[in-house]
Amino acid sequence: MISQKFKDMLNQKSVIRQMNVEADARAKEIGADKVFNYSLGNPSVPAPAKFNQVLKHIIDTKDPLSLHGYSENHGIYEVREAVAASLKRRFGLAYTADHIFMASGAAGAIAHAARAVSAPGDEIITFAPFFPEYIPYINETGAVLKVVPADTEGFQINFDEFVKLISPKTSAVLINTPNNPTGVVYSKETIQRLAELLREKEQEYGHEIFIISDEPYREIVFHGVDAPVISQYYDNTIVCYSFSKSLSIPGERIGYVAVSPKAKEAETIIHMCTQISRGIGHNCPASLIQLAVAELLDETSDLSVYETNRNILYDELTGLGFSCVKPEGTFYIFPKALEDDAKAFCKRAWEYNLALVPSDSFGCPGYFRIAYCVETDMVKRSLPAFRALAESYKK
Amino acid sequence: MISQKFKDMLNQKSVIRQMNVEADARAKEIGADKVFNYSLGNPSVPAPAKFNQVLKHIIDTKDPLSLHGYSENHGIYEVREAVAASLKRRFGLAYTADHIFMASGAAGAIAHAARAVSAPGDEIITFAPFFPEYIPYINETGAVLKVVPADTEGFQINFDEFVKLISPKTSAVLINTPNNPTGVVYSKETIQRLAELLREKEQEYGHEIFIISDEPYREIVFHGVDAPVISQYYDNTIVCYSFSKSLSIPGERIGYVAVSPKAKEAETIIHMCTQISRGIGHNCPASLIQLAVAELLDETSDLSVYETNRNILYDELTGLGFSCVKPEGTFYIFPKALEDDAKAFCKRAWEYNLALVPSDSFGCPGYFRIAYCVETDMVKRSLPAFRALAESYKK
Repeated sequence: MISQKFKDMLNQKSVIRQMNVEADARAKEIGADKVFNYSLGNPSVPAPAKFNQVLKHIIDTKDPLSLHGYSENHGIYEVREAVAASLKRRFGLAYTADHIFMASGAAGAIAHAARAVSAPGDEIITFAPFFPEYIPYINETGAVLKVVPADTEGFQINFDEFVKLISPKTSAVLINTPNNPTGVVYSKETIQRLAELLREKEQEYGHEIFIISDEPYREIVFHGVDAPVISQYYDNTIVCYSFSKSLSIPGERIGYVAVSPKAKEAETIIHMCTQISRGIGHNCPASLIQLAVAELLDETSDLSVYETNRNILYDELTGLGFSCVKPEGTFYIFPKALEDDAKAFCKRAWEYNLALVPSDSFGCPGYFRIAYCVETDMVKRSLPAFRALAESYKK
Repeated sequence: MISQKFKDMLNQKSVIRQMNVEADARAKEIGADKVFNYSLGNPSVPAPAKFNQVLKHIIDTKDPLSLHGYSENHGIYEVREAVAASLKRRFGLAYTADHIFMASGAAGAIAHAARAVSAPGDEIITFAPFFPEYIPYINETGAVLKVVPADTEGFQINFDEFVKLISPKTSAVLINTPNNPTGVVYSKETIQRLAELLREKEQEYGHEIFIISDEPYREIVFHGVDAPVISQYYDNTIVCYSFSKSLSIPGERIGYVAVSPKAKEAETIIHMCTQISRGIGHNCPASLIQLAVAELLDETSDLSVYETNRNILYDELTGLGFSCVKPEGTFYIFPKALEDDAKAFCKRAWEYNLALVPSDSFGCPGYFRIAYCVETDMVKRSLPAFRALAESYKK
């Protein structure tokens, strides 16, 4: 009996991926230089050269039986130790290997974290606009994803709406800062207020409410921005990290769960992750990849292009009259569409060969996402198209 | 709220892993050459040298942005094409890339296959003795694992018990041949009879019943043994393959789902796997590892040591009066214990520094598993211990 549920999901195609497919098709038709594909959040800069060097060094020097053999269920111990040491050095908490579980990217990390701190029927709250994959990520755990409407002023947290939604059923809140799709970094004030509110509610409800902090963009923060470290503000924090964006290696599927040493039963949660793996079928990321990232914990690709692109786009778009919050990190910007219907707006943009993603699937209608993880040259070439698009709304 | 379910699972420690930990501890105490660790199914021969060569060649020649970038959700297309071509050439079915989904080892493959062909409450039937991890693998899908008692004559299928268990709720049967823990290969007759029975029941119940064929040991078949290819006997077959044992790369977590081209909605099932991934958090194995195995599809490690060890152990154990079915593949043998209580037997064996695994967790009390993926020298050194153990039961 073929599963009707997963069969039905085939009809819910990702808007982002569909836009990308259309952009690729048109590029073949009219030339790649004439299509401005801002659809996908795929890193546009290569991994640091050191990544390949390290891979080859490991292959050349490690005993193949141990290199390619089964690793521990939590991940390779030395790798977990190295991750913990790096987090401790950078963020000042007493992380040890016992607080780290190696996972297959942030998706794998969230799959574990969400299951570890919720039971079927529990509610996990996230904040619009949000990464649309959170819906299947959370709903498949048996918990229910609840979405707080956006704070469209600054894309921080809409606390008025949040307090309406939080309840004794809330087991966790899932945040993403620096944020996809807005590029906004939650301020110190936002995080403090969130932490205080959650501590109050923990007292009131008599159980923990965890912050699951999805941090694939942690290393992509622009000059002069002070991105708060969530675990420094709230003890019951589980960080879900991915090396996909910082090292430009999304295909290698590597990240980790880091439970704050101050969280309730932190070590137990890490052990529980190994049990969760058994049921969802992914026992550890590839050993070779684990060992390689352990050598690059304090490095990133050359991420400067993203800030360059942010500057050009922000200046141009605001100059054209677009309303938008200035991104402080990531490689996204999230301006207001020039008409209420973001889908209609993106359809019109497509007439100018601009592949933009309407905001509806991010839970915040009326906006659009530009993923500027592209070459700066393409950004510059696309500006006349944005001008023509804006002009078309003045007629 | 920390998940009680996964917390409780921490108390159900794997007997196999516990035995291995004890064996390691004793080896440190009295010397590794004096402890005979037959507990873990971890390959004892290295990956083919070509595996490392191919990895380095890929790293040296591929554009890093595309090499380490996001792959398609189904797995890298060229890799899926290569897998399909190899299966078609070897097994004669019309496999194409559309029938292949790249997964993180057999565990990842089963996580997808089981979800694709069952709904919560459905029953998936397996046959004792069986790999104990099937319990969390299946139960976490929402389906229920039902176990057919063993055919202790030949460790084929106990059809009398099977027909009692199969029902309209049965959505799939999960088989494993060559088998862990018995080393037995299901005969042509067994597979034919299974296929006929399932076809009858499909008719009777008015829905498909899939065979999920867990095949990590497919390439470890001993001389003169003709291992039937399940998909040649039954159309609704989903193969879950792992390269862990054939290439000795279990830590690299790579395998695939191969749906028979003759299965109902075969291509749909593969597409559904990408939807299943979203919910369980593992979108593809590492790109580098996918590309590497695609170059070694028709190769294996030098697996001859397993047959050598089988011969020595089978001859010795039967000579000592142990009752056991001769393994035709894998690196396991599954003799009857010399007393009814297999745990007590293994405890006594441990007095002779023999780390054996009692059969209870395999769903077939009264036997024990020897994992002879070890150096032949250790097998030879262990024979006096087996002799002394057998002798102790004659007193």
